[in-house]
Amino acid sequence: MIIDCHGHQTIVPQPHLDYREAQKARLKDPSLPVPPRPDMSDDEIREGIEANQLKLLKERGHDMTIFSPRASRMEPHVGDAQTSLDWSVACNDLIRRVMDLYPDTFIGVCQLPQTPGGTMENSVQELERCVTELGFVGCNLNPDPSGGHWNSPPLTDRYWYPFYEKMVELQVPAMIHVSGSCNPAFHATGSYYIAADTNAFMQFLQGDLFKDFPDLKFIIPHGGGAVPYHWGRYRGLADMLKKPDLAEHVMKNIYFDTCVYHQPGIDLLFDVIDIKNILFGSEMVGAVRGIDPQTGHYFDDTRRYVDALNLSDEDKYNIYEGNARRVYPRLDAYLKSVGK
Amino acid sequence: MIIDCHGHQTIVPQPHLDYREAQKARLKDPSLPVPPRPDMSDDEIREGIEANQLKLLKERGHDMTIFSPRASRMEPHVGDAQTSLDWSVACNDLIRRVMDLYPDTFIGVCQLPQTPGGTMENSVQELERCVTELGFVGCNLNPDPSGGHWNSPPLTDRYWYPFYEKMVELQVPAMIHVSGSCNPAFHATGSYYIAADTNAFMQFLQGDLFKDFPDLKFIIPHGGGAVPYHWGRYRGLADMLKKPDLAEHVMKNIYFDTCVYHQPGIDLLFDVIDIKNILFGSEMVGAVRGIDPQTGHYFDDTRRYVDALNLSDEDKYNIYEGNARRVYPRLDAYLKSVGK
Repeated sequence: MIIDCHGHQTIVPQPHLDYREAQKARLKDPSLPVPPRPDMSDDEIREGIEANQLKLLKERGHDMTIFSPRASRMEPHVGDAQTSLDWSVACNDLIRRVMDLYPDTFIGVCQLPQTPGGTMENSVQELERCVTELGFVGCNLNPDPSGGHWNSPPLTDRYWYPFYEKMVELQVPAMIHVSGSCNPAFHATGSYYIAADTNAFMQFLQGDLFKDFPDLKFIIPHGGGAVPYHWGRYRGLADMLKKPDLAEHVMKNIYFDTCVYHQPGIDLLFDVIDIKNILFGSEMVGAVRGIDPQTGHYFDDTRRYVDALNLSDEDKYNIYEGNARRVYPRLDAYLKSVGK
Repeated sequence: MIIDCHGHQTIVPQPHLDYREAQKARLKDPSLPVPPRPDMSDDEIREGIEANQLKLLKERGHDMTIFSPRASRMEPHVGDAQTSLDWSVACNDLIRRVMDLYPDTFIGVCQLPQTPGGTMENSVQELERCVTELGFVGCNLNPDPSGGHWNSPPLTDRYWYPFYEKMVELQVPAMIHVSGSCNPAFHATGSYYIAADTNAFMQFLQGDLFKDFPDLKFIIPHGGGAVPYHWGRYRGLADMLKKPDLAEHVMKNIYFDTCVYHQPGIDLLFDVIDIKNILFGSEMVGAVRGIDPQTGHYFDDTRRYVDALNLSDEDKYNIYEGNARRVYPRLDAYLKSVGK
């Protein structure tokens, strides 16, 4: 099997978009009624999926995508805690409908109803709902719900602990993923995402979070931000900060995906990071949607780069399937329950 | 010759540190007198340089360092515009004294008296003073003088134009370099620096600054942040944003240094970035000061990684000397004036 650990529902039915617009209109004019939950047919949902993710997934020979709401539109910085909660529920429920339509292909990871300066309580509850009621296998945790002002405590702070406790209890990992940027200094997919990935890693390196939570697991997407390229810097900083070797200190709990859109980047990732810490991912349909004129293939067709590594059968199995089943134990349980 | 384009005066005489402390004390208690400029002997200056930068430079066989005040202590977020101006003048004057003591070895690049929310006027004046009176050949431009709150306009904004006009007039490049972080979410050398590097590149990619300033030159340090590792992503984003090919769009004006502290990272840098856009640098003595247990050599001894590439003589000349002379025309003029 080929499991893509990183896909977002970037194209959604119009009623879902209309719901979001109605939410935003009500933020400007609170006299407007609370918008009703978006109503849409299965066909409307199929339309977006089949023309995009499912089409490309088939073309590329993937079998399954770990699927979450569109990252850049999570927008926890828009409105208040209730806005974020209502929007997260709508987005997650839509993911569940995709799962119902394509149970062999898409499995859910949830958006969290975070809010700048708020507690993680709503997120704890929504995670529980998504995992226990909707059958989701993970979540996307936003380290900066302010949308580019970076005023949340580091991920090692006790602020996050109630959420981590729930993650461990439910046996689900989190992908670290910021949303759109409302800071004109940051381009979302070109800079903000990569900065957040790198920053998360450095926060884990500085802290001792995994002493408190030895079973906590994080996927740092976009190939781990800048981390593999600067692996020597991070090994050196761990040394200067008197931390254990990175393999012991953080790499029992951190995984990088393969969302790196050229061969030399993938080569480097596999050169410096242990195979057991890499999960196949493409973020298709996502940040970069064009065709690379140098190769004639989609930039985000990351399977081509991984296949070009000529890995052993065992390594290939781990990258494409085994590691995902290990990091997402509920995915593994689901697959086993359907005989896979 | 081997010219290191990226060195900071990380170890300074005690009177210089005392001056800074007196500045900070006066910020807390404005009834204190304005501290007098620090007074120190040549021997005090020699002591720090000879035991550190000069010692390592000789051991590693470098000839020259393009030298600037300690980046993490520029701290434009501390105090007001006058604090920043006084501190910058003190730091730059100290660099000039190092140049006087070691005219064959160190040449200055200045700290700028930026201040969060302020204009670039003081920086224009200090740049002019450092270049025309002190013989400096460039500057360190801080894209986020807030120290981690990222509230400055993008580097393509007209806010920066008066400063760029002066840079072009004086024929000096700028290294993009943030200072210490006052945001607990960001570790300075482990995350903030790398985020700022990546962000600067993406801002240039999004804008069209080099149409307005075809002669403007920037060095993006720390190997260009995350950019070379994600080179496919940036090529793809340029395509999505309907920008020209990166070679045309930004790479006539942007240079990366070699401050990447392991062999696979340097290999990648040279694999994807044109030799003409790479300047040798180590940032010694800087972010990572230890010895890599995997190699037995200093992490930041970047010459070893570059030498291991087995470049042609011409490429070697350009990386170690030629590119620096081209990007810093005043360095070239200075070297020619002393027969080099």
